[in-house]
Amino acid sequence: MAQRSGRRPGLSGTRDAILDAARERFSAVGFDKASIRSIATQAGVDSALVHHYFGTKQELFVAVVRLPVDPSVVVGPIAAAPLDELGETVVRTVVGIWDSPAGAGITAAFRGVMAGGDETLLRTFLLEIALKGVRERVDDPRGSAEKRVALAASQMLGVFAARKILRIEPLASMPIDEVVAAIGPTIHGYLTGTIT
Amino acid sequence: MAQRSGRRPGLSGTRDAILDAARERFSAVGFDKASIRSIATQAGVDSALVHHYFGTKQELFVAVVRLPVDPSVVVGPIAAAPLDELGETVVRTVVGIWDSPAGAGITAAFRGVMAGGDETLLRTFLLEIALKGVRERVDDPRGSAEKRVALAASQMLGVFAARKILRIEPLASMPIDEVVAAIGPTIHGYLTGTIT
Repeated sequence: MAQRSGRRPGLSGTRDAILDAARERFSAVGFDKASIRSIATQAGVDSALVHHYFGTKQELFVAVVRLPVDPSVVVGPIAAAPLDELGETVVRTVVGIWDSPAGAGITAAFRGVMAGGDETLLRTFLLEIALKGVRERVDDPRGSAEKRVALAASQMLGVFAARKILRIEPLASMPIDEVVAAIGPTIHGYLTGTIT
Repeated sequence: MAQRSGRRPGLSGTRDAILDAARERFSAVGFDKASIRSIATQAGVDSALVHHYFGTKQELFVAVVRLPVDPSVVVGPIAAAPLDELGETVVRTVVGIWDSPAGAGITAAFRGVMAGGDETLLRTFLLEIALKGVRERVDDPRGSAEKRVALAASQMLGVFAARKILRIEPLASMPIDEVVAAIGPTIHGYLTGTIT
């Protein structure tokens, strides 16, 4: 990602225009269909400038949603997990990030979305970035992946709300190993088991 | 609950003082420990006046959180369900209310809490009112009920967030029977199965 500090005065307007255009495009058509070119056009700048400021489209998206973590921190371990450890790995990786110093920023972002903000952006992040690699691996029988991922996402969203927002005990204070043991089989079942 | 309309001018200040005191007490010590007497004392009125305006403590709580549904609509069917249909009944009853005309008010209340409002009050409602009857039925082995209920609450919160806020498909548009078939076994397992 381009540097945020040390830039000359006057450039921040351009940067903000790109962010505004990107937010609008991602909300309107989703992550996959929003091209850097369409974002650049809407912002009145050249595509190269978008790349210069923000790097890849994924990095631009991360800047738009002000995501406090690099998605590859989630995506990497999950992609590397064998299928029979997928549920456990999803829970361990995701809860691990919530419990890390980045968690406060995630909580703030989640609260903002739930309050009535960018639902489309959070949904896009979950489905088209964070869980995209999962979806491609669990489409068995063919056509079931979307439902599998939606069910898994619902359970993870709920663990977040219960553990981090509502602080429902014992889930709020449970060591991560116990969360993995309790929730992992549910995620595993949604992703790889028989679903009706 | 006492009538809200037709009261003489000037009484609304008393009514609001009781609501403020109740909100403060419920937040500070929870539903069970907040007595009508302590609320009345804090509001500077007699306990009888609290009952006159708001009825029972549960009705007062409902007024405090401006709950758009009567909790007995949830609690009744769940209490009547045989244990082996408990998971399915929880999902069908709760999702049925979300999908009813009352759903819009629930969504608004949920958004408000998630934005940074009365987490304590929503937690209290979930655990001490809506799910209290469930907790008493699933404490097997003894001491496991709190965890069972927390896990079930996490899944239901997540279905709400996915179906009603983020509108993650196919969960958002799924007919209720399909939601029950997909989520019911998870809730059933959390409430009555082996948990680690």
